[in-house]
Amino acid sequence: MAGTKYQYVKNFELPDPLLPGTFMVYRLDGHSFHRFSDEHKFAKPNDLRALRLMDHAAQNLMEEYPDIVLGFGESDEYSFLLRKSTSLYNRRQSKIVSTLTSYFTSCYVLYWPTFLPDTPLRYPPSFDGRIVLYPGEKEIRDYFAWRQADTHINNLYNTTFWTLVQQGGETTTQAHATLKGTISKEKNEILFSRFQINYNDIDPRYRKGSVLVRTEVPEEEPADKTEQQKKKAKKKAKPRTKVDLIHCDIIKDQFWNERRILEQ
Amino acid sequence: MAGTKYQYVKNFELPDPLLPGTFMVYRLDGHSFHRFSDEHKFAKPNDLRALRLMDHAAQNLMEEYPDIVLGFGESDEYSFLLRKSTSLYNRRQSKIVSTLTSYFTSCYVLYWPTFLPDTPLRYPPSFDGRIVLYPGEKEIRDYFAWRQADTHINNLYNTTFWTLVQQGGETTTQAHATLKGTISKEKNEILFSRFQINYNDIDPRYRKGSVLVRTEVPEEEPADKTEQQKKKAKKKAKPRTKVDLIHCDIIKDQFWNERRILEQ
Amino acid sequence: MAGTKYQYVKNFELPDPLLPGTFMVYRLDGHSFHRFSDEHKFAKPNDLRALRLMDHAAQNLMEEYPDIVLGFGESDEYSFLLRKSTSLYNRRQSKIVSTLTSYFTSCYVLYWPTFLPDTPLRYPPSFDGRIVLYPGEKEIRDYFAWRQADTHINNLYNTTFWTLVQQGGETTTQAHATLKGTISKEKNEILFSRFQINYNDIDPRYRKGSVLVRTEVPEEEPADKTEQQKKKAKKKAKPRTKVDLIHCDIIKDQFWNERRILEQ
Amino acid sequence: MAGTKYQYVKNFELPDPLLPGTFMVYRLDGHSFHRFSDEHKFAKPNDLRALRLMDHAAQNLMEEYPDIVLGFGESDEYSFLLRKSTSLYNRRQSKIVSTLTSYFTSCYVLYWPTFLPDTPLRYPPSFDGRIVLYPGEKEIRDYFAWRQADTHINNLYNTTFWTLVQQGGETTTQAHATLKGTISKEKNEILFSRFQINYNDIDPRYRKGSVLVRTEVPEEEPADKTEQQKKKAKKKAKPRTKVDLIHCDIIKDQFWNERRILEQ
Repeated sequence: MAGTKYQYVKNFELPDPLLPGTFMVYRLDGHSFHRFSDEHKFAKPNDLRALRLMDHAAQNLMEEYPDIVLGFGESDEYSFLLRKSTSLYNRRQSKIVSTLTSYFTSCYVLYWPTFLPDTPLRYPPSFDGRIVLYPGEKEIRDYFAWRQADTHINNLYNTTFWTLVQQGGETTTQAHATLKGTISKEKNEILFSRFQINYNDIDPRYRKGSVLVRTEVPEEEPADKTEQQKKKAKKKAKPRTKVDLIHCDIIKDQFWNERRILEQ
Repeated sequence: MAGTKYQYVKNFELPDPLLPGTFMVYRLDGHSFHRFSDEHKFAKPNDLRALRLMDHAAQNLMEEYPDIVLGFGESDEYSFLLRKSTSLYNRRQSKIVSTLTSYFTSCYVLYWPTFLPDTPLRYPPSFDGRIVLYPGEKEIRDYFAWRQADTHINNLYNTTFWTLVQQGGETTTQAHATLKGTISKEKNEILFSRFQINYNDIDPRYRKGSVLVRTEVPEEEPADKTEQQKKKAKKKAKPRTKVDLIHCDIIKDQFWNERRILEQ
Repeated sequence: MAGTKYQYVKNFELPDPLLPGTFMVYRLDGHSFHRFSDEHKFAKPNDLRALRLMDHAAQNLMEEYPDIVLGFGESDEYSFLLRKSTSLYNRRQSKIVSTLTSYFTSCYVLYWPTFLPDTPLRYPPSFDGRIVLYPGEKEIRDYFAWRQADTHINNLYNTTFWTLVQQGGETTTQAHATLKGTISKEKNEILFSRFQINYNDIDPRYRKGSVLVRTEVPEEEPADKTEQQKKKAKKKAKPRTKVDLIHCDIIKDQFWNERRILEQ
Repeated sequence: MAGTKYQYVKNFELPDPLLPGTFMVYRLDGHSFHRFSDEHKFAKPNDLRALRLMDHAAQNLMEEYPDIVLGFGESDEYSFLLRKSTSLYNRRQSKIVSTLTSYFTSCYVLYWPTFLPDTPLRYPPSFDGRIVLYPGEKEIRDYFAWRQADTHINNLYNTTFWTLVQQGGETTTQAHATLKGTISKEKNEILFSRFQINYNDIDPRYRKGSVLVRTEVPEEEPADKTEQQKKKAKKKAKPRTKVDLIHCDIIKDQFWNERRILEQ
């Protein structure tokens, strides 16, 4: 057969399985989104339309890939937790990281006009992805705590910075100088004393980031099902789930105690 | 600082550099494109609009990433050759494979309406990507020969199959049976004797696939440049390049002898 | 400096860190030990001298590498558990696997004359090693259970086989045929009814394999130490440990409950 | 069967194949040989007995593993080149690196009494190993040039240093100070003007290191072989080879031009 003599090149494809029995965290980041948000005139410090688009793409990804049990997003990045026992694409690293990044990107571009109808895309946005393995529940808790702590730090800074510029009349250079070396308490104080803004009153979406959780949907049974049909349905059915967006604390225990995210 | 105590989770990110001094081939494939092409009613055996969109996305990718020196596409897959000495993203595997796949996907979705204006996207298409390393020029030649031989085999089969169905009135089941076990010569014979189709007259785009080559663009110098400006320009400038689409044989030597693709 | 222009070749050395926070199991196996045991006329089914040499080499390895918290050996193989948080050689895979295998081999050859004084080494024996990562305690328990179950299966077979040959007068071919398809109970029955051997009376060394556990040695304080010296000693000292060889069940809970092997 | 339920732990063994079509360089280094050479009172700057033992172990390794086509040793390290197309142990990294290191170590310990009959081993010596992949011939040439340049630098320094101490009556601290910042020419000058030593007259073994090359041995045919036997022998036989030790320049072209080391 034509081509047979070239097939040896397939031998250079090396396996890249990820260690079984570990949690995968898949994280994606916008590629050069500093420039991208400038070019598309994103509102500062947070562009609600762009954040909603991120959430929507992430939600779509979780609906397409049931093995993702948790998502957390802030700004132009999103982290997803896959259940420990997932055998998605036989745990092949390149396959997983490329496919998930592709699907997310596809959603982002496809639904862009829905969320930013007045802002045509000037060029194709892209994302990079990576997978990090964590062996235990503690590390997973700490990973998500790390991201949400980061959200807090960034958002407090950005909120104060842009308030100084937009309401305080400072140049960006001046605002940088004003904030240099300040700790959280001082930023809160600037917001409150100079602009009567209580940081804790700001929309939790910005302060806490976006949390996507999967919950089971109780299946309604049609009244006229035979016993046979019921048995069959019971056997087959994975419970249907839906993905909810919330903006809550995921550092403390409560969030995790109320859900069985890590036991799947 | 808040978050500091969680930062240890970064230690679980392991390095994934690709061996220096080797050619990278990056290949992407449409994910479940059998279903995707059905849902979007792609013409059989080849949908010119969809192929042009693939080529356009690939061309965009090569324009964005100058280290890609060659592209080859057929159907819903594309292979790209990166020059041996590339240090793109420090040769980190996940970063490269995710970013390139994301960028291609983004182009595919963004330019879909341009190429298939009458066919709205029904759901987000996605691609998977992989990187294979090849140490030498021979393997690179054979890799691309392998893909083009595959193009030939698939296209001859599909062309004959769909001619039997579309012009010969066979069902798809019948057409499968007709072709079962046939060799190339027999498929050519079916096309010619029953349908007066000379396979070699078919558009080379379908028979040879799409080849994207990068060529240098001679920079025109404005007449009024000072000597100083010229020197400066000369020093800085990487030669500008453009990416051309052709449909030619890449198995034989001629294609390679006429270009310095592997010496970069 | 001479040599500077060649130093780029160091860039081809790629990092190979093992995932943090996971247990490493390091296992070594005799290389072609079927032939080796024939050439050195090892007693069948078990050569006590050779097994003691294996245990001695393993004990030495554990004394040299305090991060090894458990060893299990049977025949010409040995498995070692490293504590989860070990940072031995920065968890570099090749470094660990090569160094441990080298050290074990070195002990095996060096102490050979001590354990087999009448049998000169006819050629250099060698071992291969590998590292397998396990994320959790359950997998570690099951790993060692797997090896001990294997010890049982092999030893019951070999004991019966060689009894048939040595005491029953069968050829090896006949003994193979006699045992073909037999289950454990039937082998026990052959031993008991034909040779009056109660398998459970056989030395646990053969039935259970060799278990190496590390225990703390209480440090005696010399009577004349000053308070200053005591404080200093307290501060510095990791508790001294010794490595004990036992032959006991490691499948059931008792062994693990009595020790804190996995919590280190 | 007993043990079956534990067998899943085998799934945690991940494949580790090395890229085909590349040269493997396997390098081993003595582990803590500074202390080891002190404890065993190695002569300074070079201990001929210990170097001969290294060479002997390396020669044994090459005789055992015909896929090694070149060896280069200095001090307590040795590098080995495997032919590009080797399929030794299916190119599995851990298997190769552990087995080769084990075999070398085994030879080193086994033949120690032959080469250092008056110096009993005080404790088990060990080595670490690593494999580095190189895609092309140029990198292989440069790798070995790098090691030989290193041999030169180290040996010139050590020779001058120990001459200052042994013949010049300097303390080691003084000798360090004397040599600090000196270039090669100055070390040569110290040796010549103060001690009448022409560095180039020193044994090439020390100046050039040890080079192990494999050469074919013409097979003598017994006179009484039948035609049939000859045919069979011809078909089966890999040419027999032997491994020669030389001490020559391997940086310049001559060494490589006279042999077909890289073309195997």
